[in-house]
Amino acid sequence: MTELETLRDDLRKFSAARDWEQFHSPKNLAMALSAEAGELLEVFQWLTEEQSRNLEPKAMAAVGEEIADVLLYLVRLGDQLGVDPVAAAQRKLAENERKYPADKARGNALKHTEL
Amino acid sequence: MTELETLRDDLRKFSAARDWEQFHSPKNLAMALSAEAGELLEVFQWLTEEQSRNLEPKAMAAVGEEIADVLLYLVRLGDQLGVDPVAAAQRKLAENERKYPADKARGNALKHTEL
Amino acid sequence: MTELETLRDDLRKFSAARDWEQFHSPKNLAMALSAEAGELLEVFQWLTEEQSRNLEPKAMAAVGEEIADVLLYLVRLGDQLGVDPVAAAQRKLAENERKYPADKARGNALKHTEL
Amino acid sequence: MTELETLRDDLRKFSAARDWEQFHSPKNLAMALSAEAGELLEVFQWLTEEQSRNLEPKAMAAVGEEIADVLLYLVRLGDQLGVDPVAAAQRKLAENERKYPADKARGNALKHTEL
Repeated sequence: MTELETLRDDLRKFSAARDWEQFHSPKNLAMALSAEAGELLEVFQWLTEEQSRNLEPKAMAAVGEEIADVLLYLVRLGDQLGVDPVAAAQRKLAENERKYPADKARGNALKHTEL
Repeated sequence: MTELETLRDDLRKFSAARDWEQFHSPKNLAMALSAEAGELLEVFQWLTEEQSRNLEPKAMAAVGEEIADVLLYLVRLGDQLGVDPVAAAQRKLAENERKYPADKARGNALKHTEL
Repeated sequence: MTELETLRDDLRKFSAARDWEQFHSPKNLAMALSAEAGELLEVFQWLTEEQSRNLEPKAMAAVGEEIADVLLYLVRLGDQLGVDPVAAAQRKLAENERKYPADKARGNALKHTEL
Repeated sequence: MTELETLRDDLRKFSAARDWEQFHSPKNLAMALSAEAGELLEVFQWLTEEQSRNLEPKAMAAVGEEIADVLLYLVRLGDQLGVDPVAAAQRKLAENERKYPADKARGNALKHTEL
């Protein structure tokens, strides 16, 4: 079993033990994930990019918490919908390889439709 | 190597080939992750919870794309900061086991500080 | 002077007095606004739609705070970029009137491109 | 009538004509607002702060659209819950004046609890 499958199963047990299945509709999980992404923004919002590359311990700890929360909700959402997040990410990355040819995309952040 | 470590390495190669390292500050990656989370919301915003549990094929495809994007940015962000997302998620889940004892949390969605 | 222009001027004074202009780049303000929108989501994430129409006092107070924060950052962002939020909203609403003809859009939540 | 009250009334008519009241639960409106905030992020995510202060015409137009969308959903959300966004913002700003005394807050972006 992969590590995300283990996490998925642990989350199933965690939710079942608390009868939280009722709250975990995909709609609600998408909201929870996005709220956690918002907390991630909060850590970075007044930092320069340079500062964000050299976080102080307190900010680093906060970011670790939010990364964890986002991943937990992402795994749970995938489970509710039968989507394998890693397989989806691999497909998307392969697609991005095609949409953003290295020679055209080098050093710019244009959308592929603008390349 | 775990599947997320493979994804992490693939993303490093992808970014290096395009000279995108310069754009991938943690601050910017947090923004990109949150923007993708927002696209996830967009799929669900007018659906009932019931409908969100039974997505039509088009919505399901869109959700798969956004789950992929969120995971890709999450892995990339973790890599830039030296955070292992899976280890962080496992720690957080263990912590939640303690903060939300099954007997107190059963069937309600209160924050642990309100239990 | 309109009420949002008054708010804009109050925010200018507030920021100048604290030398916060340096932090208020449009990029940072967009992050702060989105982080506040995330806090709004947090209030609603485990509520049913019905419950969200009948908030308890504590949730209502929280929502009021977040609505305030979103508006403050929105006004500040508009000011930094020379965008009048109300004029922009009026234009957008007029555009939506055209894109979503009442007879076609009635009772469904399809995107205008799907009507 | 203030400009936001006019916008509120225009939105009521717009929604009633399309029978969209059913979709406009506070929960759903919070999602829609946050999704629009995410689109705002997307404009800025790869720009430097400096670039975000000097937007190109295309990005500026996009930002204007998103500012409009956020305001429209904010006004609609306030209307559904009986919250006056401007009054709430004025109260919050007055509160922030107290929580962030100019002499202590000058030139730093610490949270008031850290001042």
